[in-house]
Amino acid sequence: MNKELVLENERIDDLEINGFRIIQNPFYFCFGMDSVLLSHFANIRSNVDVIDLGTGTGIIPLLLAAKGKGKSWTGVELQKDIADMARRSTILNEVEDTDPQELFPAAGKIRIIPEDVKNLKKIYPHGCVGAVTSNPPYMKEKTGIKNPSDTKYIARHEATLKLEELISTAAYLLKSRGSFFMVHRPSRLPEIIELMCRYHLEPKRLQMVQPYIDKEPNMVLIEGVKEAGRELRNLPALIVYKENGEYTDEILRIYNKL
Amino acid sequence: MNKELVLENERIDDLEINGFRIIQNPFYFCFGMDSVLLSHFANIRSNVDVIDLGTGTGIIPLLLAAKGKGKSWTGVELQKDIADMARRSTILNEVEDTDPQELFPAAGKIRIIPEDVKNLKKIYPHGCVGAVTSNPPYMKEKTGIKNPSDTKYIARHEATLKLEELISTAAYLLKSRGSFFMVHRPSRLPEIIELMCRYHLEPKRLQMVQPYIDKEPNMVLIEGVKEAGRELRNLPALIVYKENGEYTDEILRIYNKL
Repeated sequence: MNKELVLENERIDDLEINGFRIIQNPFYFCFGMDSVLLSHFANIRSNVDVIDLGTGTGIIPLLLAAKGKGKSWTGVELQKDIADMARRSTILNEVEDTDPQELFPAAGKIRIIPEDVKNLKKIYPHGCVGAVTSNPPYMKEKTGIKNPSDTKYIARHEATLKLEELISTAAYLLKSRGSFFMVHRPSRLPEIIELMCRYHLEPKRLQMVQPYIDKEPNMVLIEGVKEAGRELRNLPALIVYKENGEYTDEILRIYNKL
Repeated sequence: MNKELVLENERIDDLEINGFRIIQNPFYFCFGMDSVLLSHFANIRSNVDVIDLGTGTGIIPLLLAAKGKGKSWTGVELQKDIADMARRSTILNEVEDTDPQELFPAAGKIRIIPEDVKNLKKIYPHGCVGAVTSNPPYMKEKTGIKNPSDTKYIARHEATLKLEELISTAAYLLKSRGSFFMVHRPSRLPEIIELMCRYHLEPKRLQMVQPYIDKEPNMVLIEGVKEAGRELRNLPALIVYKENGEYTDEILRIYNKL
């Protein structure tokens, strides 16, 4: 079966949680620590439907499904070949959606839709979902890049999805008190907070991720809750490496290695 | 001389930087680590006039003067008896302002004005100053507190100075590219960032302060630069205590003990 599911240049990696695996193409991109940390940061109850915006390989729905965080997961990916690879990963893990007529997949299932995040307001009703996740492109769109149509560029730059479109779409999809979980660059935090406040996603939980104890953070994990009251809980900075370059115990715990 | 300067219940404490001392009244409040960290965080050049909003005992102007950060310092304090105590500290350190007719004190001098921050827009011209500092009241005004007119209550609660008034006043006073340095509670960060953006004080530098490496931050240091471009620099979290309860080397360095 695997042979049919895996195309040229693709490989299967073990997610090491409940036997879940993922199909990736190293010539495009492979999932990174940001997705692992986001799926750990996202506290989603088991009765909640989840939509992942810009799902790429489907890593976040797969990790959330493996952890039992949420009831169903829908991953939205603009790039058709990447979306198809993600869909094949759901088949590989036997969690593929089988009810495409329903608003959300059945419990325990993942649906991948090849769609532009910008079109979701036409597809889903307002306030339909309990949680939205996203590991979006971090980089502002640059001019003068050689090939802005290539797969890697679209995944990494805001070529096709601006931060405001992402946040306003998350706010549109979420029910009142539903949560938006995002990982992004700390340098963009003022814009992130300003936009979340503008779209009534109140920042309620934030964690900086530092490579080392004495190094500046290079990721921020943030949860915004729709129409919640003001009061941000800041978690202790998450440190990735010890001085000797080994993973800290906290990272090993997150990776299920401790 | 000291006897005339120090009233009943007051005491003189050594700031341990360049021989500077401060008069404090332990029945009101004494300066805390927040002011020390803010004066360390504030990178102010020696040709810049500084205004400190809600100066209390004058601790921040005194620390900045002791460190040579800034050219002159003006501390604004609503409570007249506290402002008088701060003024006596400037005499004690021989840095008292002697040119009350000038817009700012002479180089190396501190002026304390007993004034409501809300009135500063009538006193100072727009865009007159290069740096503004503030260690404002942290707590939102609560109803039902027994004695909201007392000195300690006013210093700790937003009874007389709301965050928006503080930030809009700082923005009014600052020249373009001038810096506003503030210490506050991390739980208020969304409101702080939203207000700073609204008044064109772009958040440019941020540091969380954690009591221990595995404890949530209880202070945030933030610099907003008037009319600057977007891009926040996040410093590594500042950890106060080691596991054994002793100060970390970084804190000892800030306190000039290492």
